[in-house]
Amino acid sequence: MSTRAFNFSAGPAVLPLEVLEATKQAVYDYNGSGMSVMELSHRSKEFEPVIFEAQADCLKLMNLSPDEYAVLFLGGGASFQFYMIPFNFLKTKANYINTGVWATKAIKEAETLGLGEVKVIASSKDKNFNYIPKEYTVDDDADYLHITTNNTIYGTTWAKDPEGVKVPLIADMSSDIFATRRDFSKYDLIYGGAQKNIGPSGATFVVIKKSFLEKCQRKDVKFPSMMDYKIHIENESMFNTPPCLPIYVIGQTFKWLLKNGLEKVEKDNIKKAGVLYDYMDNSGGFYTPTVTVKEDRSLMNVPFLIKGGNPDLEAKFLTEAKPKRMYNLKGHKSVGGLRASIYNACPLEWIEELTKFMDEFKQANS
Amino acid sequence: MSTRAFNFSAGPAVLPLEVLEATKQAVYDYNGSGMSVMELSHRSKEFEPVIFEAQADCLKLMNLSPDEYAVLFLGGGASFQFYMIPFNFLKTKANYINTGVWATKAIKEAETLGLGEVKVIASSKDKNFNYIPKEYTVDDDADYLHITTNNTIYGTTWAKDPEGVKVPLIADMSSDIFATRRDFSKYDLIYGGAQKNIGPSGATFVVIKKSFLEKCQRKDVKFPSMMDYKIHIENESMFNTPPCLPIYVIGQTFKWLLKNGLEKVEKDNIKKAGVLYDYMDNSGGFYTPTVTVKEDRSLMNVPFLIKGGNPDLEAKFLTEAKPKRMYNLKGHKSVGGLRASIYNACPLEWIEELTKFMDEFKQANS
Repeated sequence: MSTRAFNFSAGPAVLPLEVLEATKQAVYDYNGSGMSVMELSHRSKEFEPVIFEAQADCLKLMNLSPDEYAVLFLGGGASFQFYMIPFNFLKTKANYINTGVWATKAIKEAETLGLGEVKVIASSKDKNFNYIPKEYTVDDDADYLHITTNNTIYGTTWAKDPEGVKVPLIADMSSDIFATRRDFSKYDLIYGGAQKNIGPSGATFVVIKKSFLEKCQRKDVKFPSMMDYKIHIENESMFNTPPCLPIYVIGQTFKWLLKNGLEKVEKDNIKKAGVLYDYMDNSGGFYTPTVTVKEDRSLMNVPFLIKGGNPDLEAKFLTEAKPKRMYNLKGHKSVGGLRASIYNACPLEWIEELTKFMDEFKQANS
Repeated sequence: MSTRAFNFSAGPAVLPLEVLEATKQAVYDYNGSGMSVMELSHRSKEFEPVIFEAQADCLKLMNLSPDEYAVLFLGGGASFQFYMIPFNFLKTKANYINTGVWATKAIKEAETLGLGEVKVIASSKDKNFNYIPKEYTVDDDADYLHITTNNTIYGTTWAKDPEGVKVPLIADMSSDIFATRRDFSKYDLIYGGAQKNIGPSGATFVVIKKSFLEKCQRKDVKFPSMMDYKIHIENESMFNTPPCLPIYVIGQTFKWLLKNGLEKVEKDNIKKAGVLYDYMDNSGGFYTPTVTVKEDRSLMNVPFLIKGGNPDLEAKFLTEAKPKRMYNLKGHKSVGGLRASIYNACPLEWIEELTKFMDEFKQANS
């Protein structure tokens, strides 16, 4: 391949090189079958192991039992889950914690359905979502609590799982799934778009505790089949034709994760983010991460400013990054400045190259 | 690659070899960018041309103007459109023509929503869907008429567009999109899963007449953003992260179609299907297509029986086909027997090989 670019995109984002290599072969000739993985019937003996192994590997990575949890790979994006969740579980009242644009959308869309009260029990909107709320009271009679574990745009993360939650816990983990070891058993439903940390866009993973579904799913309304988790589970995630190629790539990424082990992946992520944040915290204020509460800083998305937010210097930084083949460093418009997304597949060397460039830029522009 | 298999799968299905070759390169290193097409931000200057060109090429193939029509590539499968359509357009009464399993599902799911009357004005269920109804009366006050132009399972097709329809016309064209030249301007909304004739699974195309949307979209209910065609169009099919890789492959298939021209594609399809049907019709009853009304026979999916439906011989046929590398010839359980799906990317040579094998089999088992 051409020299690999330093791709700091927030998503779709960098994938492991060996996943790209496997995909390159599979889209052309899958396992010597004379057919592309894209050409396989989803119900064929060639493709079924692809989806079933991806489901099993997902639970292995989560340290969860297939007897207790089911894994779905659905189309429609995480945004589609913003409806499926209240459609299936909102009976009288749901609690949401608002930590950014995506949480806000989840709240708004749940409200649209009008199936029950959508109560925001905490929000960090007062400071443009640059921290994770620590004080909140979960209603004992809530149907569920919904959180967003990592906030791609603002660079904040729930470093610890919420504690003492007595109601079912649901989390959008789109942008930090498998970035660290978590106690996934604390969650009743985990979902996310694949396109940040585990695959390409086009598939959404949903991991659901079967007993939660049995006990808590609405039985009083008849909802469309495509929105019914139970129907998808009964059909082994193949109620309709699934997004086969994205699922293949996700499966390959899971194998890469299992080979490395989440312990190493987590350690690497802490190291990578540490190098970047430390460099900026010691840059004499030339670079400042927008998230100042250190414990809330994301390991995956690192938004930052130059000289407290100098648009000219930030534009110059982006211009000079390009010939170094460093891409997608522009911050999201809601925050401004710059942002480096450094997902699992981003190697430490890229951070070293980035901080080296940042330092040269600082020397030249201080 | 290994010797290419003769893949007669009903979907996901055979794709043009040059599309596989382009995809092989793109998933590894897109245009020398040092990034996979899967790693590109959907809002990047690298990816935007991919989706915008696919949209433009789709309309070129349909001979429709981008001023009058919009093209979306959505996740969730054609099954998701079964809701989106009534959600957006069913106010008092919709007309459906039932020509098979998928039409039945579209009807059932529209009924589930309970937004208005779902009236089946014609059905071929009486003969296990082995013909297309010719006699029907469309209600003048229907919000729309919904048809399924090709019925993958039963091998029937609407060879001619329905005539004299005075209400908006909506069609599921999943399994015969771009198999022939159609007067697409007769339709107000055309949709389908990509995985049969134009790409891999994971993306659904929706072509919608803008004036139809403006005039006919429900304004009396607030429906979820993801179900609102207007929101998707306003966001250029990127309201949420689209299924980028499937869209890339679809775009490549459109370029292959444009290069060949629909006139040639149609001619080839007529030739291919003709060779197969003619061979069977002249086989002295050894092979019989399940669709006896010749004008209703699909050019894409050819279900057939051996000796009027002999399970032992049919099983033997499948067993002996495998060493010839002829796959996915088993019929759908609703029809039984055998089925050869011969989409656009299936070359004439495959049909010749298939009929040669069929003839050898006939000689040995007559």
